[in-house]
Amino acid sequence: MAEAVPIQGARADRARRAADVLRQQIHAGAYPDGLPGENELAAEFFVSRNTIRQALAILKNEGLIDRGPKVGTHVAQRKYDHGLEALLGLKETFKNHGEVRNEVRAAMLLAAPPAVAHRLQLKPGEQAVFIERLRYLGDLPLSLDLTYLAPDIGAQILDHSLENNDLFALIEEVSGQRLGAASLALEAIPADAHSAATLQVPDGVPLLMLERLTSLDDGRPVDLEYIRMRGDRITMRGNLLRSRP
Amino acid sequence: MAEAVPIQGARADRARRAADVLRQQIHAGAYPDGLPGENELAAEFFVSRNTIRQALAILKNEGLIDRGPKVGTHVAQRKYDHGLEALLGLKETFKNHGEVRNEVRAAMLLAAPPAVAHRLQLKPGEQAVFIERLRYLGDLPLSLDLTYLAPDIGAQILDHSLENNDLFALIEEVSGQRLGAASLALEAIPADAHSAATLQVPDGVPLLMLERLTSLDDGRPVDLEYIRMRGDRITMRGNLLRSRP
Repeated sequence: MAEAVPIQGARADRARRAADVLRQQIHAGAYPDGLPGENELAAEFFVSRNTIRQALAILKNEGLIDRGPKVGTHVAQRKYDHGLEALLGLKETFKNHGEVRNEVRAAMLLAAPPAVAHRLQLKPGEQAVFIERLRYLGDLPLSLDLTYLAPDIGAQILDHSLENNDLFALIEEVSGQRLGAASLALEAIPADAHSAATLQVPDGVPLLMLERLTSLDDGRPVDLEYIRMRGDRITMRGNLLRSRP
Repeated sequence: MAEAVPIQGARADRARRAADVLRQQIHAGAYPDGLPGENELAAEFFVSRNTIRQALAILKNEGLIDRGPKVGTHVAQRKYDHGLEALLGLKETFKNHGEVRNEVRAAMLLAAPPAVAHRLQLKPGEQAVFIERLRYLGDLPLSLDLTYLAPDIGAQILDHSLENNDLFALIEEVSGQRLGAASLALEAIPADAHSAATLQVPDGVPLLMLERLTSLDDGRPVDLEYIRMRGDRITMRGNLLRSRP
């Protein structure tokens, strides 16, 4: 039986607590005209002003807010919500938030490395179509997407405009099939120097790294993607159900 | 109609491509006895040895591999898979991977900040039970979990051992109900100095930050959590279905 343990005096613990709640409030759009003053926040969280300052320093360091002695505390950048539930391309996801534009950095046939060939059910050494896109929402990069496509699908996709279309939509168009399911792996990794420069962020900042293998409705895997999302611009959201025993 | 654009000579682009495939191979357990030599990897990815060195430098910087002149390249740390599909506690998830142990840093009643009260459907100023746990798998911290519980459920949970139980299991035990659904938000954020020290990682490294609101089977939200997972120890995995138009 656990005793009720009071939080030891550490201000940092209380600051983290306040920062976590404030972060989600900011994501939810609670402060369009700026955050409340330090005194008001201190009262709201039942902590000292110094603790609130420390909480705001955490959020500033994440790039979420700007602070200034005269101008107060403002949201520096709203994050965009990307769905963890439905399989949607970026353009479909953000159709109400602005234009998704793709800078096509590569689009070509290449010999698939064995691990890629295996996942796409290709013969060893068979060629895949490789597409690399830097994806913008508004003026800033959102993600850097590396895509390997099964050659029959990919070759047809190379005949289409990649600048303004989601690959998911193009795959469905050229295959005449709906996409079925995707398996995905999501990690937080530091941006290597070259990826950071490409995504216009400082070296080493956190990225959401998504590996996603998508299959057609008939079960054939056709699309293997490695997607680096800027951690300061994307939140993945979804719902889970408790599994039955 | 897009022309097939060859990748410009940038070695960094080819290195990123190789690193992304190798990362997933490492996660899949493909190299229990160490990675192949540079020449072998260069042949596998159809790139130069210098490109492979650059790819391995990326993975080393992520903490995924160790490299030495005599000993070759080894996996420094296998990552653990955490499910994005079923709603499971850590202990349930890792029951085959070792013991999950919780260091209870706080367990107490506190006045819920308005945003927390709102999400848990409490009256303004009503108290919630707050529990903070540093969760270990093996000898290393895996995550730092801040939890707010509805007071009726939380008060009963304080009578149970928090060191060796998942909160999900305890909530079901004391409420006599199964958990229903959870809504979650997942981000990549940099570790602030104090959280980094607590999780035993360097300042600023990427964390997976999960906010999760879990409801009982009857729909009442009872458990609001803010979970910092070490980016170098956890991969979130799941499956998605294409939504029907």
